[in-house]
Amino acid sequence: MKQSILKKKIIKIFKNHNLISSHALICANALINAELVDAPSHGLSRLKMYCDRIKKKAINPKPKIKIKKISQSISHIDANNSIGFVAADIGVKQAIKNAKKTGIGLVGIKNSGHYGLSGYYAEQAVKKNLIVFCFTNAPPAIAPYGARKSLFGTNPICFGTPTSSKIPFILDTSVSIINRGKIRMAAKLGNKIPRGVALDKFGKPTTNAKKALEGVQLPIGGFRGSGLAWMVDILSGVFTGGNHAGKVKDPFDDFSGPQNIGHLFIVIKPNLFVGNYNQRVKKNIKTIKRLPKIKGVKEILYPGQKKFKRYKKNLKKEINIPRNILEDLKKLDA
Amino acid sequence: MKQSILKKKIIKIFKNHNLISSHALICANALINAELVDAPSHGLSRLKMYCDRIKKKAINPKPKIKIKKISQSISHIDANNSIGFVAADIGVKQAIKNAKKTGIGLVGIKNSGHYGLSGYYAEQAVKKNLIVFCFTNAPPAIAPYGARKSLFGTNPICFGTPTSSKIPFILDTSVSIINRGKIRMAAKLGNKIPRGVALDKFGKPTTNAKKALEGVQLPIGGFRGSGLAWMVDILSGVFTGGNHAGKVKDPFDDFSGPQNIGHLFIVIKPNLFVGNYNQRVKKNIKTIKRLPKIKGVKEILYPGQKKFKRYKKNLKKEINIPRNILEDLKKLDA
Repeated sequence: MKQSILKKKIIKIFKNHNLISSHALICANALINAELVDAPSHGLSRLKMYCDRIKKKAINPKPKIKIKKISQSISHIDANNSIGFVAADIGVKQAIKNAKKTGIGLVGIKNSGHYGLSGYYAEQAVKKNLIVFCFTNAPPAIAPYGARKSLFGTNPICFGTPTSSKIPFILDTSVSIINRGKIRMAAKLGNKIPRGVALDKFGKPTTNAKKALEGVQLPIGGFRGSGLAWMVDILSGVFTGGNHAGKVKDPFDDFSGPQNIGHLFIVIKPNLFVGNYNQRVKKNIKTIKRLPKIKGVKEILYPGQKKFKRYKKNLKKEINIPRNILEDLKKLDA
Repeated sequence: MKQSILKKKIIKIFKNHNLISSHALICANALINAELVDAPSHGLSRLKMYCDRIKKKAINPKPKIKIKKISQSISHIDANNSIGFVAADIGVKQAIKNAKKTGIGLVGIKNSGHYGLSGYYAEQAVKKNLIVFCFTNAPPAIAPYGARKSLFGTNPICFGTPTSSKIPFILDTSVSIINRGKIRMAAKLGNKIPRGVALDKFGKPTTNAKKALEGVQLPIGGFRGSGLAWMVDILSGVFTGGNHAGKVKDPFDDFSGPQNIGHLFIVIKPNLFVGNYNQRVKKNIKTIKRLPKIKGVKEILYPGQKKFKRYKKNLKKEINIPRNILEDLKKLDA
């Protein structure tokens, strides 16, 4: 489908679900961006879920979002159970504003929902020539080290920096060995998942995707990844006033109330300490790219480079929509 | 050796190497702390190296450390090639001061050296009831994803938070699968290292510790850990004005000049967004500890808990010093 047509459709659908135009536009842009970077698990496949959550009052389509100024640098946002895209968009824009004013912006958000890809918000800050961290928690997927029950979300760590090229450095990595979306996809297609990435519900290693979804995903580096997931839960949940410790509801399965996800954005001016940050980072990347490569590796890529290439390529094309999602679209657009 | 006697000895040694009393005390405390938390690779085994670097003018024993105030929240420190312990101690104290004043403190340090354990500085902030990040880069040890040559240091990610108990939550994790100190130790003892943690200098997997030291360590989670190491190199090196992209000299092997390591501290007041942070984090930890455990696991521990137990136990005992290090001490103390 043509991107312009798809965008209009999504906007119309969200407006029909009582979102105001500006919020519907934010949501449409975020969903289409996920498709363009080849992360369909965060794209159109979630549209019906968001609409269902609005219908069942688990998302507030007309939120009264309150931005509390703590200082010139620090703001706290109560998103009033808005759709996550809207809360995060307002949040990162506020953090950018604060950072431009004072050198550093810190914004905590509570009462939000799943916001899609962290990298999408990081990009906004990087485009304004700023360094950025984005943290969010998520529904249980990873077992804390030593436990046989999921509690942490895939809790991404996202860091972005300008590079002096058009392609931003965006590290957006979950702390699970593989992304949950990939396991969901394998379960749908009946494919196996690699050994060592998940346990079944009895705590035994499994390569069966369905059993893995019922069980737990394993974090990278054992206790190291578990500690990083814990850190993200504390920063985005405990610190902001959001849900934490496994209390974030699964958006697909649990419509009993809002998710109250928390997000945390830290935005920093890159030239605080050195006058030539962009040249320095350029040199850093150049040096690393020149290293001798492992057999079969053509180029050493920095985080975000591959995604940017996919985005550029996809931007010129129509978006390929699987049949079941096309049917969702038709029903929602009716 | 009794801790009090050892401390006096170390202070005397550093003073004989031209450090002022207050700096010698900072160094002695940091080295003894490493022994007390059972991290001897960061303790007395490094004393001779530090002294050698001073003798060979790779560390400046009488640094003129300049603290530049960028704002109430932000400071930049030029450590003038001081021993890393001193720069980091001054740096974290400045970040704590800034955070207490404004809610958030950001301190970048350049022209520093190896500062020992990140967790040691994180503890200082947590003891003042603050949240803290510490970043530092280090000499080449890890290959960027796709490369067969080391460039990133083990580049720890360190995060600390008060817990409302006496035992702080301190995640202090290198992004290599195992610590370099462990590989050094295995090389000394002629032991093998686990499969999958390192490559030899030809880029082939090895379990030989010596070959691993000549080759590269692998990051946790492949491209994920590589990205995290890259992030730490940018934050602590590129951003602060420190060396980066593999330019940090190995403190044991390269006496041709100062290391110019960079550090970055971010310190945050925990009650910025919620009034009851400490109760919230207490509940978070309690919930996670109650999860069903994997067979053989007695207790789910949060990061820092094990280290604290070791510290408490060791605090009551004399410090056990291996013979070769005892000889170093004698020579240095002569």
